[in-house]
Amino acid sequence: MVENKKINVAVVGAAGYAGIEAVSLLLKHPIFNLTCATSDSDAGNYLSDLYPYLINKCDLKFDHHDVSIIASKAKVAFLAVPHTAALDLAPKLLDAGLKVLDLSADFRLKDINEYEDWYQTKHTQTDLLKKAVYGLPEIFSADLSADLDLVSCPGCYPTASALAAFPALKISVKNDWIADNTVVVSALSGVSGAGKSCNAKTHFCNCDENVGIYGLLHRHTPEISQSFSLIANKKINVCFTPHLVPISRGLLSTAYIKLKSDADYTQICQEYVELYKDKSFVSYLGDNVMPQTRNVKNTIYAHVGTCFDYYSNTLIASCAIDNLCKGAAGQAIQCANIICGLDQTCGLDNLGSAI
Amino acid sequence: MVENKKINVAVVGAAGYAGIEAVSLLLKHPIFNLTCATSDSDAGNYLSDLYPYLINKCDLKFDHHDVSIIASKAKVAFLAVPHTAALDLAPKLLDAGLKVLDLSADFRLKDINEYEDWYQTKHTQTDLLKKAVYGLPEIFSADLSADLDLVSCPGCYPTASALAAFPALKISVKNDWIADNTVVVSALSGVSGAGKSCNAKTHFCNCDENVGIYGLLHRHTPEISQSFSLIANKKINVCFTPHLVPISRGLLSTAYIKLKSDADYTQICQEYVELYKDKSFVSYLGDNVMPQTRNVKNTIYAHVGTCFDYYSNTLIASCAIDNLCKGAAGQAIQCANIICGLDQTCGLDNLGSAI
Amino acid sequence: MVENKKINVAVVGAAGYAGIEAVSLLLKHPIFNLTCATSDSDAGNYLSDLYPYLINKCDLKFDHHDVSIIASKAKVAFLAVPHTAALDLAPKLLDAGLKVLDLSADFRLKDINEYEDWYQTKHTQTDLLKKAVYGLPEIFSADLSADLDLVSCPGCYPTASALAAFPALKISVKNDWIADNTVVVSALSGVSGAGKSCNAKTHFCNCDENVGIYGLLHRHTPEISQSFSLIANKKINVCFTPHLVPISRGLLSTAYIKLKSDADYTQICQEYVELYKDKSFVSYLGDNVMPQTRNVKNTIYAHVGTCFDYYSNTLIASCAIDNLCKGAAGQAIQCANIICGLDQTCGLDNLGSAI
Amino acid sequence: MVENKKINVAVVGAAGYAGIEAVSLLLKHPIFNLTCATSDSDAGNYLSDLYPYLINKCDLKFDHHDVSIIASKAKVAFLAVPHTAALDLAPKLLDAGLKVLDLSADFRLKDINEYEDWYQTKHTQTDLLKKAVYGLPEIFSADLSADLDLVSCPGCYPTASALAAFPALKISVKNDWIADNTVVVSALSGVSGAGKSCNAKTHFCNCDENVGIYGLLHRHTPEISQSFSLIANKKINVCFTPHLVPISRGLLSTAYIKLKSDADYTQICQEYVELYKDKSFVSYLGDNVMPQTRNVKNTIYAHVGTCFDYYSNTLIASCAIDNLCKGAAGQAIQCANIICGLDQTCGLDNLGSAI
Repeated sequence: MVENKKINVAVVGAAGYAGIEAVSLLLKHPIFNLTCATSDSDAGNYLSDLYPYLINKCDLKFDHHDVSIIASKAKVAFLAVPHTAALDLAPKLLDAGLKVLDLSADFRLKDINEYEDWYQTKHTQTDLLKKAVYGLPEIFSADLSADLDLVSCPGCYPTASALAAFPALKISVKNDWIADNTVVVSALSGVSGAGKSCNAKTHFCNCDENVGIYGLLHRHTPEISQSFSLIANKKINVCFTPHLVPISRGLLSTAYIKLKSDADYTQICQEYVELYKDKSFVSYLGDNVMPQTRNVKNTIYAHVGTCFDYYSNTLIASCAIDNLCKGAAGQAIQCANIICGLDQTCGLDNLGSAI
Repeated sequence: MVENKKINVAVVGAAGYAGIEAVSLLLKHPIFNLTCATSDSDAGNYLSDLYPYLINKCDLKFDHHDVSIIASKAKVAFLAVPHTAALDLAPKLLDAGLKVLDLSADFRLKDINEYEDWYQTKHTQTDLLKKAVYGLPEIFSADLSADLDLVSCPGCYPTASALAAFPALKISVKNDWIADNTVVVSALSGVSGAGKSCNAKTHFCNCDENVGIYGLLHRHTPEISQSFSLIANKKINVCFTPHLVPISRGLLSTAYIKLKSDADYTQICQEYVELYKDKSFVSYLGDNVMPQTRNVKNTIYAHVGTCFDYYSNTLIASCAIDNLCKGAAGQAIQCANIICGLDQTCGLDNLGSAI
Repeated sequence: MVENKKINVAVVGAAGYAGIEAVSLLLKHPIFNLTCATSDSDAGNYLSDLYPYLINKCDLKFDHHDVSIIASKAKVAFLAVPHTAALDLAPKLLDAGLKVLDLSADFRLKDINEYEDWYQTKHTQTDLLKKAVYGLPEIFSADLSADLDLVSCPGCYPTASALAAFPALKISVKNDWIADNTVVVSALSGVSGAGKSCNAKTHFCNCDENVGIYGLLHRHTPEISQSFSLIANKKINVCFTPHLVPISRGLLSTAYIKLKSDADYTQICQEYVELYKDKSFVSYLGDNVMPQTRNVKNTIYAHVGTCFDYYSNTLIASCAIDNLCKGAAGQAIQCANIICGLDQTCGLDNLGSAI
Repeated sequence: MVENKKINVAVVGAAGYAGIEAVSLLLKHPIFNLTCATSDSDAGNYLSDLYPYLINKCDLKFDHHDVSIIASKAKVAFLAVPHTAALDLAPKLLDAGLKVLDLSADFRLKDINEYEDWYQTKHTQTDLLKKAVYGLPEIFSADLSADLDLVSCPGCYPTASALAAFPALKISVKNDWIADNTVVVSALSGVSGAGKSCNAKTHFCNCDENVGIYGLLHRHTPEISQSFSLIANKKINVCFTPHLVPISRGLLSTAYIKLKSDADYTQICQEYVELYKDKSFVSYLGDNVMPQTRNVKNTIYAHVGTCFDYYSNTLIASCAIDNLCKGAAGQAIQCANIICGLDQTCGLDNLGSAI
């Protein structure tokens, strides 16, 4: 591989958990060359000052969130910023000729009213919203191609929930097996999903030895519903409850889909096999084998398992991912690979470990 | 209080987690006097040899599981034994004149076929099964009285699930608000729920930083369904999935009840207030306040919260308990208090702690 | 017991971890009657709003840190406040006729220069400092009596370190077995020891799956050295390093005492037996049996074990306590019992649990 | 790189934690080609059956521990077996022409009496013992070269302890600053260090929320003493205590070295800088900056920090490693790289992650 094939990239918001995960992955990427990592509060400091695991491995300093700096240093930008920040940054970076991978929520919901309802803010970039492509390659692959320049990367819960339910919804709608247009989705997330901010909720003594539902009527609800509805080609309501569990990283999402009595579970399993057999990053574990987050930790892989509850005619489909990798930075790089004309797996080969 | 009011009690299977929890609680009980704790594998050793937290606090030695020993030492026996063992022990202890609190599954399911299906064993005590009373005092209080001598103590998941759903089911059935006779129940349990046996599943390196569904089509399913159906006065199917989470003790169970469009959530909340306001051990936290296991850890208290998802017309009711206390030993002692004519709260006043 | 024997008490700084632990213990105390719990930032709110485990168990609201309020409501005050705050509060409360148990560092160091060096602040109460008695009843029992009105409660690390080393230092000095006047003390603490403030250090994602030394040249060093020197009746230097470990509560401190070749380890073990055999809250586990924090969690008990390393002639003495109970609030109540003329164990009977 | 440069390798004992860690690392190695992974109890099963993180990433099946199978498939063997097993396997594999990296204790102690004392077994391979080279490249680099065929890989505690103390011992001995030939070493290890066997000690409910010293007079003591003595060029006694802490992987070892009053700490820090500045895998964090295990988790890197306690003239030197990587499999591969003529860093570039 020749040196001039390298593509310079920036991580905007690199001090947060998704941002620094992107940094970790990009430092090992064979084509993407990390030249810029921004954080207003840490500007001027070495990344390794804030994150000592980078000592002697990365000599970058944090830059300010400044469009001209970013544009001068990179051709691709990953936006790991809070919602609304991307509404401001994305158009400017696109105007400056960069490709943009937005990890925030700003371009995920196609219905502008839903965005404005759930996020209680005005959406100022309605044209860009139409142009933005939702970056979940295993499900909406047709949407993703090398000529794109704005990808909206899915949330962590929506990623796992869609991967859990995708084949089941697809075949069940086709065969008219869906008994109820409401799907219950119960999910568990590690504390890194709550972000790097230090507060009473993220204090060790609150999280440790504790589980509970948080974030009722969570903002990921309409995004999950949007994906399910697109897959099903009809409106699917989602009753979504996230739980906070005492692990650092890892996310499990389980969908409960009520089916009619003539639903054929064997065919459903077969659909999982078919739809996932050629996906590099998704493994269907099979019937009655349920995924565990440990087995995908620190990787971009998703594990999916299903079970059929004959007592209640309910399909139970569960997916485990790493919330920071497949659920955030890893999937963003997967999408960046695609829109830059690389193999989508490029640089994402971390296998994880047994423990 | 005079000495002759003391009642001698035994814990059968005291080396397991539920058994040793009963020991802990009984050592502080003002009336029950722990005189016998059995474990075949540890017989002859001090309890404090196996559990050093008891050093200088308890000078009992483990006895063998021998009916004549138990009967000679105690008037009340707590059976913290695996299923089928109680089928053998309970009738003998009752014959010897003891009151029996069975913490196993042997007398929980009133439908003998369900027992034999789910546990894959013959039920040999069908007469006793009819006589055994299900010990969930906050819901089935009418069944419990001082003249009983056999109580079947509920499982941990069924306890929390029933406490979560009780008021909602009661008022919704009365008003014909139930839209679907299937209730999804998603629950999380600490590792002590998997028992004291050391295996690949309970190894620290497997549990730590890991979550997942286990025990598909779990044996507590028919018991939860039985309670829900008794409350609703009609058959309720339960789609139940338990998750293993990296905490030692604590259990959260959440029921998702699909309601008709005319259901009145305000009335449902009011029913929670009404049914739980005079219960010593159950607190309704209110609308949109969800329980956390930490807040009931090491106590017999249950915390219940509800939320209504208007998008899908689904009531979400969640209950947190300590799986070893309200979910096992504590509730058994609560029932023992009742059938021995004591105040049901006697000796169960541990408040827990902030962290 | 007649009602008028109750003694009203206040917890000043009740929102912090040591303060709320005092609240938990006092709510169950048969004589002390908690009438006042202060927190400036939470004044007016129910304690159960901040700490939901108290729902339906405590209907107190937080008061302001106001001496006149405290003095009007209580006869005994527990000061769970940061250092320097007690310098201001203690004299005023004493003047108002209260007995004061100070959990801060303000009256621990008898050498005013050491206090001013290590805490980088002026000590404004030198007369009170002389009067304050150091409240470690198992070691300095002669100092504690019912006529005292100011007790300085030891720090968590100094408590465990002194309990670990006390018998060994005592007999070794008597027999001239000490080979080196420097004792290495290596200690591990749960995160509650770092306090309730939320910061990068106490964030779950920092603490979880992580251990390391923190707080080099920790402020507890001179207090440990002071106790060791008092026990040994000569200056003992302490090389103290605390580690932060991912547990919520629990503290282990281990002292390494280099002995001369004629030291008799059997006699040392015997001294541990002798000095601790009649102590309600300290258990010597014996030779080669090392304490674990789990076995004293949520209790006031201390477990001590010893080992002799013949290769290096070093005595290894380790003590486990609960940092919030024996290491803070529990010991303060133990001292309050003594200075109020009660049995020192009164209300401190929580046994803990196996897991 | 051409295909015929690949070197086939085997992991013997691949089902254990060190073995499966070697598998993880080797699957990504650019030269070593994993062709054989043995486990008698799992022979015939896919590695991914036992360790689902390998699903779709590795299609190997476990072989039996059979020398002829191993020799037919590989040119290099990693022995991740219990002690004594390597005494049997190593000579046979060497005779068959393989290079052997032994991760067990069998060839670590050069003094055969120490081996036989501490392991209570006969050493049957005294000639091989003389030939085996101790594989700690950052300290004993002169011993390691491409013509070797038997490397004894250091234990996890000895690796971290030697890296912590190496520069301090070296310069202090040279300048006659050592005040005491006994060095206290206090270390903390994650539970994977206790191995994969499931027992009461490794049960989640025992390890969680618990810390304590275990394994008194631990078998790593003579190995640490051997390394310290080799570095110091005189006998150094080690008083070593390991603690079990509730993390899965990670190890921290801290040495307390008593120095004479004329010791110059600035020079000592400079020696750390000098000796580690060109080491790929060891970073000296500097004065008063202490390492944390999180920052080296899942990597081969070691972080070292120092502090000087002027009160007791004691140097405190602490080193954090990942016990399974730098403490076992990673260092074995580092040594294998060297004895196979590759760059020692080959294939060991995992950077880790922020959380």
